[in-house]
Amino acid sequence: MYQLIDGKATSAQIKEEIAEEVKQFVKQGGKIPHLAAILVGHDGASETYVASKERSCQQVGFNSTIIRLEDSITEAELLKKVEEINKNVDIDGLIVQLPLPDHINEQKVIEAVLPEKDVDGFHPVNVGRMVIGLPAFISATPAGILELFKRYNIKTSGKSCVVIGRSNIVGKPMGILLSRKSEYGNATVTLCHSRTPNIKEVCLNADIVIAALGKAEFLTGDMVKEGAVVIDVGITRVKSDKTKSGWKLLGDVKFDEVAPKCSYITPVPGGVGPMTIVSLLKNTLLASKEK
Amino acid sequence: MYQLIDGKATSAQIKEEIAEEVKQFVKQGGKIPHLAAILVGHDGASETYVASKERSCQQVGFNSTIIRLEDSITEAELLKKVEEINKNVDIDGLIVQLPLPDHINEQKVIEAVLPEKDVDGFHPVNVGRMVIGLPAFISATPAGILELFKRYNIKTSGKSCVVIGRSNIVGKPMGILLSRKSEYGNATVTLCHSRTPNIKEVCLNADIVIAALGKAEFLTGDMVKEGAVVIDVGITRVKSDKTKSGWKLLGDVKFDEVAPKCSYITPVPGGVGPMTIVSLLKNTLLASKEK
Repeated sequence: MYQLIDGKATSAQIKEEIAEEVKQFVKQGGKIPHLAAILVGHDGASETYVASKERSCQQVGFNSTIIRLEDSITEAELLKKVEEINKNVDIDGLIVQLPLPDHINEQKVIEAVLPEKDVDGFHPVNVGRMVIGLPAFISATPAGILELFKRYNIKTSGKSCVVIGRSNIVGKPMGILLSRKSEYGNATVTLCHSRTPNIKEVCLNADIVIAALGKAEFLTGDMVKEGAVVIDVGITRVKSDKTKSGWKLLGDVKFDEVAPKCSYITPVPGGVGPMTIVSLLKNTLLASKEK
Repeated sequence: MYQLIDGKATSAQIKEEIAEEVKQFVKQGGKIPHLAAILVGHDGASETYVASKERSCQQVGFNSTIIRLEDSITEAELLKKVEEINKNVDIDGLIVQLPLPDHINEQKVIEAVLPEKDVDGFHPVNVGRMVIGLPAFISATPAGILELFKRYNIKTSGKSCVVIGRSNIVGKPMGILLSRKSEYGNATVTLCHSRTPNIKEVCLNADIVIAALGKAEFLTGDMVKEGAVVIDVGITRVKSDKTKSGWKLLGDVKFDEVAPKCSYITPVPGGVGPMTIVSLLKNTLLASKEK
């Protein structure tokens, strides 16, 4: 029988721990951590994410500021706003909600955020420091997955691990983190992607599979060996006549087929998703303490 | 019958190409590229490397400067020297020959070099930009190996590739580069290391094996499949009563056993080694042009 990795419950527990830490920290004269989010335009999903981040900040006792800017803002104006927040000593962490409008160079904006405030871990300095093994802000999703491994005592050392998907914010950093010389590292990692011809065979050899390619129900039961740990990073919204909203969320894993073969598996929703915001909060707390 | 990948001949040819490019570039009013190397102390191997880099600069028509500093230099003095070179507009590339004396924090010195002059590709900014897929100075050895693939028309796309060794300057960047979406990328990469229990089995499945762990003759004939491409990054100096010097160089690959099974293989010496200096020259040329 498989064990479900409950990201929702774990994230709730970690939020309580952070709230307690903030309380102690502030009691001893520390500054209240402060996260700022820049939201450009009115994209529905982005609104939801930012609102959820704000709510999480409130839950743990952080200050939060949402800077709302219109779609029509120029790149120069946005960069000026980033610069302003960089200089604001009260703000510890800054995230720029992506995607940005087409006329703005996303990479340029990411690189404008001061690495010390880049709690998303997207700045090249943080990516590079993470690869080299120096202290760094680590991208939220991989950090959240490592946290689940810790909380569920899932050992990675000496294990064979397959990461499917080579995105800059999940697949690549996940592979690097699991490879490195550390307690929740030391795995032999294979990074698969759209150009991997024998992906089924590769997955069948894995002790741990992390599916992060963004293709609904890609990983099927015949691709996973008995006793594997399966982590599902995907979230695809598909139409459904069985839900009130008319939509449902699917992961990259065909849960019903895969779960019976697993030792541990994350559900979608309620698995990796809730952990990403927790990583963001942890990074912000760290940024606040390091000042 | 295997084909030997001749790094010595390839590097000589590339040097001629660079020399020709510099000639044209300077004829059109461009500036002569200028590489500076800081050498602290009198370590024999370091002296040899720096001298070889200087000779290579002369061969291609670059200016080169060696800054010799005594072992007794303080970290602060060394950082001041780096800062001075950062500001010197005539110098395009700066390398600090490693290792540095124990009382100096190497990482601090690496990070002091301006990323735009970091032709070794060791600065976190360059590592991060490489991972993200942005233009960057890429670490010399992995860049040299990719160049050999190009010159010998060895395709990596869709291939299964094993990298043995997870160092910051070879194994990790090599894995990332071979995974990325590009012509000499798109491979399915498995990164092995000291904590990989089944390394023989993993290597036996690989189309391409890159041995970069620094253990003489580690990769034996029984670990490689028929037709594999084998790249040997290791250089270990061992005693020998068969050479005049009393020493010989061994790679990480047991050449006599492995070569007969290969389609392509690099020798040691004369394989990957000569390509690293060529990468350094290419990075310096790039740095010079981008100013």
